[in-house]
Amino acid sequence: MADQWATLGVDLHLEPSGPGLRKGLTDALREAVRSGRLAPGTRLPSSRSLAADLGIARNTVAGAYADLVAEGWLTARQGSGTRVATGMSAPPARPWGRTAVPQARTAPRPLAPARPAYDLRPGSPDLASFPRAEWLKAARRALDAAPYHALDYGDPRGRPELRTALAGYLARARGVRADPERIVVCGGCAHGLRLLGAVLRARGARTVAVESYGLDVHWRLLADAGLRTVPLPFDHRGTDPGALTGADAVLLTPAHQFPMGVPLHRDRRSAVVDWARRTGGLVLEDDYDGEFRYDRQPVGALQGLDPDRVVYLGTASKSLAPGLRLAWAVLPPDLGEEVAAAKGGVDTCGVLDQLTLAEFLTSGAYDRHVRATRLRYRRRRDALVAAVAARAPEARVTGIAAGLHVLLRLPPGTEQSVVQAAHWRGLSVHGLAGYRHADTAAEPVDALVVGYGTPPDHAWSGALDALCAVLPG
Amino acid sequence: MADQWATLGVDLHLEPSGPGLRKGLTDALREAVRSGRLAPGTRLPSSRSLAADLGIARNTVAGAYADLVAEGWLTARQGSGTRVATGMSAPPARPWGRTAVPQARTAPRPLAPARPAYDLRPGSPDLASFPRAEWLKAARRALDAAPYHALDYGDPRGRPELRTALAGYLARARGVRADPERIVVCGGCAHGLRLLGAVLRARGARTVAVESYGLDVHWRLLADAGLRTVPLPFDHRGTDPGALTGADAVLLTPAHQFPMGVPLHRDRRSAVVDWARRTGGLVLEDDYDGEFRYDRQPVGALQGLDPDRVVYLGTASKSLAPGLRLAWAVLPPDLGEEVAAAKGGVDTCGVLDQLTLAEFLTSGAYDRHVRATRLRYRRRRDALVAAVAARAPEARVTGIAAGLHVLLRLPPGTEQSVVQAAHWRGLSVHGLAGYRHADTAAEPVDALVVGYGTPPDHAWSGALDALCAVLPG
Repeated sequence: MADQWATLGVDLHLEPSGPGLRKGLTDALREAVRSGRLAPGTRLPSSRSLAADLGIARNTVAGAYADLVAEGWLTARQGSGTRVATGMSAPPARPWGRTAVPQARTAPRPLAPARPAYDLRPGSPDLASFPRAEWLKAARRALDAAPYHALDYGDPRGRPELRTALAGYLARARGVRADPERIVVCGGCAHGLRLLGAVLRARGARTVAVESYGLDVHWRLLADAGLRTVPLPFDHRGTDPGALTGADAVLLTPAHQFPMGVPLHRDRRSAVVDWARRTGGLVLEDDYDGEFRYDRQPVGALQGLDPDRVVYLGTASKSLAPGLRLAWAVLPPDLGEEVAAAKGGVDTCGVLDQLTLAEFLTSGAYDRHVRATRLRYRRRRDALVAAVAARAPEARVTGIAAGLHVLLRLPPGTEQSVVQAAHWRGLSVHGLAGYRHADTAAEPVDALVVGYGTPPDHAWSGALDALCAVLPG
Repeated sequence: MADQWATLGVDLHLEPSGPGLRKGLTDALREAVRSGRLAPGTRLPSSRSLAADLGIARNTVAGAYADLVAEGWLTARQGSGTRVATGMSAPPARPWGRTAVPQARTAPRPLAPARPAYDLRPGSPDLASFPRAEWLKAARRALDAAPYHALDYGDPRGRPELRTALAGYLARARGVRADPERIVVCGGCAHGLRLLGAVLRARGARTVAVESYGLDVHWRLLADAGLRTVPLPFDHRGTDPGALTGADAVLLTPAHQFPMGVPLHRDRRSAVVDWARRTGGLVLEDDYDGEFRYDRQPVGALQGLDPDRVVYLGTASKSLAPGLRLAWAVLPPDLGEEVAAAKGGVDTCGVLDQLTLAEFLTSGAYDRHVRATRLRYRRRRDALVAAVAARAPEARVTGIAAGLHVLLRLPPGTEQSVVQAAHWRGLSVHGLAGYRHADTAAEPVDALVVGYGTPPDHAWSGALDALCAVLPG
């Protein structure tokens, strides 16, 4: 009998105390409601179920419930069970804190911050086009096929199904020389960089050369690991590796410089690998949007030139969605163990999404999605280039051959006012200044970094209009 | 026309070079197969699709494919398309490495290690009973309900839906004083401890008191953060907080000491919180299996006594599956920002599983699953206690009131030989010695830590038989 009820209902933690069981239970329940621990509307377990849990008579629980309904703390309604009454628990000014928390009296910080009307910040793809139905189908197939022990603690490198699928895909589509044994799955590219930063520092590295323009968050991750970042000069052929002397490693975006948009010139690709071979340095290749290329010959992964000296970093954040928190590092043979150890010796990425992505890759759904979105992004890029040429001839669009963003060059001295004007129109867009390494010697360039992949389809033309309206005409 | 083909097929990265386009393409393809970059059986894009991608005539691609089929590198079959032939690419002894990698000549490390026939190691629930169908249903509902921007980079604390659902559940079922704003979602409990270790060290902490018996991996995580761990004495009332002097924090499993299985005595619960209030110390409460209790009054979270001085750590690893890599910390108000910053300022946990768990909690599926599995685990525990009493009277089972494991006390000096005998029978089981802190003063105790939650149902009675067979009778 107790067994039967044990599987029904919900759990409710109570610690009745004192001599009278019914009074003790009533007091404990009242206190849980009064203190706000049980929120208004919370459904309580049935008296049968709670009695079985507490090992007491059902009548005792039913009596306590009845007392509290009479007192107004609970409500009992046919079909809806017993619930905590609304409006009875005094909302505490300081919810459970002992010390004064001034902001608790003002409006609490919202759980979800407000979003701008139009968003052209780079970094995210069109999330409204995330292939939800296809993803769920793949999740079902993956979970159906997975052995039960796939749900256990796993290899710190990630699920073998995903590493195998990635090895095949990266070799075919990006020219990466991949081997499942050398792949480590990470919770986003930043997580991968954090691991590599720790490993480099533990090996005695002090300095990582970076690009003059890039992501501040990546430089901070390396700094947190105790590494100094030194920017390399940049010109129309991309980042100049001539100044690499003294660096222990270099972080590059060779296929599509972020945010400038140019590929690393062929000679410089060779020069970087030569430097690494000559000095024992390590190249960190951030291939964040390598799948998205439009009118030019694709640029393969630098890693293909020397998989012993180049770490390849890829991600599902641009091709699918950042919220998946799935990225991957293809490592030289001597680094795999150290990176897995830096992960804490256990996998930290959810197995279900890993298995689903593996199924997505092997079934061809990933290729289909990338190719379909690539076409849509190319159309957006074409519309952007045409609109700017027609409506803002003083601005110049560059870095358009690939990726989900362009660089929009502005007349000198106008960047900040354009960003501000955009803000007033409800358009969120980034100036180039925020991507400039503090130690960069070259003169700053006025430009916007326009992420045309970001808006959902219904907001795209509005975002483009808003952008053109604030550009110097 | 090109647009139409752009969305079909798969991506194939090639860099044809040299004057003759067809010859260049043929050479590039042959090299990709010969080097092993394209694995045997890999399906190539259709000639139409690849021609569109490369911006060349379809006939050129078809010609190159035909040449390579004639040479035996590719196969073309009606309905199955063009594929890399099997048996053509010489398996390289050193796949792409420049330097010699001796182990590459021997059998490679298997992607999935062999599992023992019977597994009674503690730490995992019965993974075969993971509610796959219910989870997929919740995933569908969660993804249907999620706004598209939920798939973007998110709050480092985790999705608000999950933090809100957890706050309600933990308050109701575990007596935690929770507030969504103070919850940080982590990729497993170890990830949470790693973050807390970093925050404590940054605040100047040097020493964390721990239990005499516990998880070596947790102590190592704290040591990695630069913190010394000092074990506290242990007796039948649980860990003795009398020796806390000098510690900056203490890590405890109050509801169900791991692995000894006793709850922390009521007086000692108060003493721990008093110590924290008096000294400004922090209590880290690891509530790893708080949901599983059987015959006794449930033990609520210690955090309920003082949410300003106790960090509550919970996890889905025992109630659902470790592979989800979802855990949560409920933090004092002054720690939230620091822990979120230690996470790197971005969320590192997959959004889809977070949304699914939120839906699982709010729909009541979580309660149903916990209550159903609790009943099954209790039956296993009863069978274990009865079998040991009947077949191995010299062994004594303790710590049976809760959780997914028991402590099986053995005659002095027999632990190692019992573990070894079990291993020979294909039964994996842990001795207590591996859970003993190196600096523990008390005499070692001979015992097994038996995880009766681990095997799937079909292997449970076999595992129990194997266990009884190796116990000293």
